[in-house]
Amino acid sequence: MPEPFVHRLRVRVHEVDAQAIVFNANWFMYFDVAMGELLRSLLGSYGALVDAGADFVVREAMARFHAPGRFDEVLDIELPVEHVGTSSIVVTPRGVRDGELLVEGRVVHVCVDPRTLVKREIPEAVRERLEPWVTGIGA
Amino acid sequence: MPEPFVHRLRVRVHEVDAQAIVFNANWFMYFDVAMGELLRSLLGSYGALVDAGADFVVREAMARFHAPGRFDEVLDIELPVEHVGTSSIVVTPRGVRDGELLVEGRVVHVCVDPRTLVKREIPEAVRERLEPWVTGIGA
Amino acid sequence: MPEPFVHRLRVRVHEVDAQAIVFNANWFMYFDVAMGELLRSLLGSYGALVDAGADFVVREAMARFHAPGRFDEVLDIELPVEHVGTSSIVVTPRGVRDGELLVEGRVVHVCVDPRTLVKREIPEAVRERLEPWVTGIGA
Amino acid sequence: MPEPFVHRLRVRVHEVDAQAIVFNANWFMYFDVAMGELLRSLLGSYGALVDAGADFVVREAMARFHAPGRFDEVLDIELPVEHVGTSSIVVTPRGVRDGELLVEGRVVHVCVDPRTLVKREIPEAVRERLEPWVTGIGA
Repeated sequence: MPEPFVHRLRVRVHEVDAQAIVFNANWFMYFDVAMGELLRSLLGSYGALVDAGADFVVREAMARFHAPGRFDEVLDIELPVEHVGTSSIVVTPRGVRDGELLVEGRVVHVCVDPRTLVKREIPEAVRERLEPWVTGIGA
Repeated sequence: MPEPFVHRLRVRVHEVDAQAIVFNANWFMYFDVAMGELLRSLLGSYGALVDAGADFVVREAMARFHAPGRFDEVLDIELPVEHVGTSSIVVTPRGVRDGELLVEGRVVHVCVDPRTLVKREIPEAVRERLEPWVTGIGA
Repeated sequence: MPEPFVHRLRVRVHEVDAQAIVFNANWFMYFDVAMGELLRSLLGSYGALVDAGADFVVREAMARFHAPGRFDEVLDIELPVEHVGTSSIVVTPRGVRDGELLVEGRVVHVCVDPRTLVKREIPEAVRERLEPWVTGIGA
Repeated sequence: MPEPFVHRLRVRVHEVDAQAIVFNANWFMYFDVAMGELLRSLLGSYGALVDAGADFVVREAMARFHAPGRFDEVLDIELPVEHVGTSSIVVTPRGVRDGELLVEGRVVHVCVDPRTLVKREIPEAVRERLEPWVTGIGA
């Protein structure tokens, strides 16, 4: 089973809410940023994906919040790829701080035509490069 | 069964992403804003909740995205209250545009002490005012 | 001298920063939202502007911060129009809470072609509808 | 004259607006993030600043927008320190992409007590570490 892709980031001052903890919606933003980083790492650039006539939209997203993140903390967004289907990619992101699990989620991305946002098959080149990252956990 | 609480808002220019649709994480922000509006409508002010020694954090959140929202559109965030427990409130928000369901979700809010963020019981005054809003659907 | 256009809004929970005050950059967001509301009020919809082959980008923005805004407060964003030029609109927004001036700014918007973002003249229909709002203060 | 501090970042998918360019207010967010990075680089952590009984709020901010940033681009936020006064730090941030100046600004930060937000002198330890970064340009 492969190690998941990891995107490291630092919590920005405006990403917390009035409770001084990372705003719950921003965790989904972190998940999305990490997914973009994974795709770019596979394809060289995000533009390469769009040039191939493909983009991804989120069809479903879920998160469980175990402990809060705070301003200036360094967080690792781990991004196991649970499944790659004909048109969809399922990831199970985890937000981790110094080895402590803060948040865990599950996001279903669907491949679409970038102009029409209509569902399409994942381009073969993308699928091939994703394969080594698939953990199959939970699939 | 009661009509759900509804918060109407207009999509702001920066709430869309590079695909020109409402960024997926911002739907969770809309859900949270609607929840804050519900609590304020019940208590007169959000501060009244904190003065009563209580606040809410999100323990779990989920959304299914059926169709995109776009800049300048007016959206209704409907907020059925599925369940009120000892310490938690479960809502099943829906994002609706002109009667069309765009997004549906489920969010578990947990009552906490505002200073420590430790779980506590929902204050009786809050619970009483929430009761008339409980739909029980999905409970 | 005309009364300025006013857009009223409530500070959302995620619009504050780690200091629990409205994040400085979000005041520029409020100014932009108010400008969009003014244009929509003049034209019926923001889409009407784009249909007329025009949109606006910010060329210059400035703000002085006198006192902080906080979560859940109701703020009035007043939007005096200082000047309407061939291609530009200069507004001097003020953020006001219960009559107290919190922030004052100055924003230069430039009319552009929505596809190319190249500068163009403000459509005559837009200019005509803006005229009654021009205060000339500071011009 | 010292080289300015530089914070490199990549434009996130939700940081653009409906025009698919970096939302104008987000440039002020980038400036603020860069300032936080400078302070942390000087003090080891942002918390060290707060532990010293100090924090900074923005008193004044300005930006001129020359060319747009776009999703996925790598931007350098250069942060020349123009002046360090008794209570204030003036920086003149520049947003640069591959050597091209996109945005230039000027931000006045004022030192405050973190609890009361009342103005205070910049702690000597902070001032000393800032000195080598002062360019004096525009002072």
